[in-house]
Amino acid sequence: MRTSLTERLGIDFPLFAFSHCRDVVAAVTNAGGFGVLGAVAYSPERLDQELSWIDAQVNGRPYGVDVLVPGKIDPGAADPGAHLLDLVPERHRDFLAHLFRKYGLGLPGGPMEPGADEAGRRVTPEGATGLIDVALRHPIGLIASALGPPPPAMVDRARAAGVPVAALVGTVEHATRQVAAGADIIVAQGTEAGGHTGEVSTMVLVPQVVDAVAPVPVLAAGGIAEGRQVAAALALGAEGVWCGSVWLTTDEAETPPVVKRKMLAATSRDTVRSRSRTGKPARQLRSAWTEEWDGAPESPGPLGMPLQLLLAEAAMAQVGQAAESGNPGARELANYFVGQVVGQMNQVKPARQVVYEMIKGYGDAVERLRGITDA
Amino acid sequence: MRTSLTERLGIDFPLFAFSHCRDVVAAVTNAGGFGVLGAVAYSPERLDQELSWIDAQVNGRPYGVDVLVPGKIDPGAADPGAHLLDLVPERHRDFLAHLFRKYGLGLPGGPMEPGADEAGRRVTPEGATGLIDVALRHPIGLIASALGPPPPAMVDRARAAGVPVAALVGTVEHATRQVAAGADIIVAQGTEAGGHTGEVSTMVLVPQVVDAVAPVPVLAAGGIAEGRQVAAALALGAEGVWCGSVWLTTDEAETPPVVKRKMLAATSRDTVRSRSRTGKPARQLRSAWTEEWDGAPESPGPLGMPLQLLLAEAAMAQVGQAAESGNPGARELANYFVGQVVGQMNQVKPARQVVYEMIKGYGDAVERLRGITDA
Repeated sequence: MRTSLTERLGIDFPLFAFSHCRDVVAAVTNAGGFGVLGAVAYSPERLDQELSWIDAQVNGRPYGVDVLVPGKIDPGAADPGAHLLDLVPERHRDFLAHLFRKYGLGLPGGPMEPGADEAGRRVTPEGATGLIDVALRHPIGLIASALGPPPPAMVDRARAAGVPVAALVGTVEHATRQVAAGADIIVAQGTEAGGHTGEVSTMVLVPQVVDAVAPVPVLAAGGIAEGRQVAAALALGAEGVWCGSVWLTTDEAETPPVVKRKMLAATSRDTVRSRSRTGKPARQLRSAWTEEWDGAPESPGPLGMPLQLLLAEAAMAQVGQAAESGNPGARELANYFVGQVVGQMNQVKPARQVVYEMIKGYGDAVERLRGITDA
Repeated sequence: MRTSLTERLGIDFPLFAFSHCRDVVAAVTNAGGFGVLGAVAYSPERLDQELSWIDAQVNGRPYGVDVLVPGKIDPGAADPGAHLLDLVPERHRDFLAHLFRKYGLGLPGGPMEPGADEAGRRVTPEGATGLIDVALRHPIGLIASALGPPPPAMVDRARAAGVPVAALVGTVEHATRQVAAGADIIVAQGTEAGGHTGEVSTMVLVPQVVDAVAPVPVLAAGGIAEGRQVAAALALGAEGVWCGSVWLTTDEAETPPVVKRKMLAATSRDTVRSRSRTGKPARQLRSAWTEEWDGAPESPGPLGMPLQLLLAEAAMAQVGQAAESGNPGARELANYFVGQVVGQMNQVKPARQVVYEMIKGYGDAVERLRGITDA
């Protein structure tokens, strides 16, 4: 099997696996795909450790790193001297305290925790630079920008290191803008994807992006968890696929057990695109958290990024712990980013097996298409 | 080219073209596809004339008819003795009058017009029966139920006439329910589709429906306007595709000129899923009509089906006339049902040419997939 990307990146199957979990990244790379580690949750020091671990596992096989560099963030948070937590309005603190009371969780320790400024700053162009520098000291085969055009410094450093830059987009306009900003590979992500996502579906978006940025190669993302969907993505003109959700219920994933159980039970109708976890629209499991922020009359509405991200991450860490201790209110609130393919994720498997089944399913789908066409 | 449906229905290419316009139906059937006439806008007498015209055009080639039989309608409207227009609340009449004033349209004559009861009744199971009886007196090759399970009378009459019954669904649960109710073919329609639609994308929905109803054949709908998308749909396991939007900008389409121009200019981000035209969520062009009903603080919110449908159809007929006379407010309000593929509809073409380009594009996509796979 060969596309422009299998050759260029030295992989057997053009499957890019986005995960925050180093074990998934290494497993997919070792199975013939291309693992991409989401770096946003790590400090530069911690990222360095994670990548060293991956280096030791993959024996020279290629993998990549993904950073989050939004084009627009809360204007207050853009001031490098700001204490981000001071920017969280009283109304939002009060609403969070109300939610914690209502769901039997005690007091939110949430956005007051140490390290929040640093964590929030990592999703600014300046903050991401530290992560990019660390990543480029490792033998990575790709660096991806998950939101917004890759900043010039990222493109320059990656070019100097000979590392291709990928950029995720949800619209045709963003795709052409990302290519103008120096992206070497475009990930066209449909609305059905987990995490930050636009409104246009993969089926509609991919062919338009392919035509708009040709000859720049396009990966399809959103709605891809099995071989038939890989075949469909390549039929649309993609040179490969980018999958994130499907790894969340693998053996290797560090998904909190309560969330993993919810995902295994969920149908494709149980996700929602909501600003309530990061400040930007992101698809995730529908839960009391999304329902309250987006629908409760007393909700002040989510903050911008990164403030809502800080507030939500801290709160959800507490929620996760309480849920594991059996707190029923916490179980109602618990959720995580996932795409509509959650309805196809009904069994815990090793990541390697997911890759092999995808390759097998892809082959079967192409065979079926041959049969239909040649008859 | 052969799938279970090309053989069963006697067509060259498994492309089902839904249109309210008899010229499109005949053109697609004559080009080797399968035209399906949407019957909801017609009285039984008028439908009989339309089908006789098609019969004369297609020379025995197969075509079908689509009726709208929602499972749930406004309870008041379900009473066969009710005057439907009496059920439109004062608040909704007032809001409509306010909209007409605001957009410079004079007084709405809208929901008061004669024939409204009959039109509204056609989307009830009893009302649809008249259309079904007329359809089955013609040599149709398919009868489709566009919303809700096909009623038992429809299934019985179609079976007796040897005509397969198709049913449109937006969820896996509805698909299994429709098969249990007697559907012979399932149309799995993703959220990106125009008209009444669910929330799950085509990419995610189709493989799940295929698995859930096997061996019942599945058509993919939503996001399909060109050959690459047909190939993708078949890769997902569909036996064919069902397209509606793409015909709206053909030469043959009776789309009002103002709406046609909006569609040619629209991107894939310019649609919205809204209850404002029929009472049930339906994807359509975003316009002042959808923004006002769904977002204005003074909006009473859309009514149920069929009341909102009656109110909106009458209002939009007036809006369309005023828009053609150059009224700028009317141009802001004007819209119509269309899917996200509207971003790919940038040129007026004969329907026949759309079919031929789709067949050619399909072949190219399969060829590309062979090249990738065999390399």
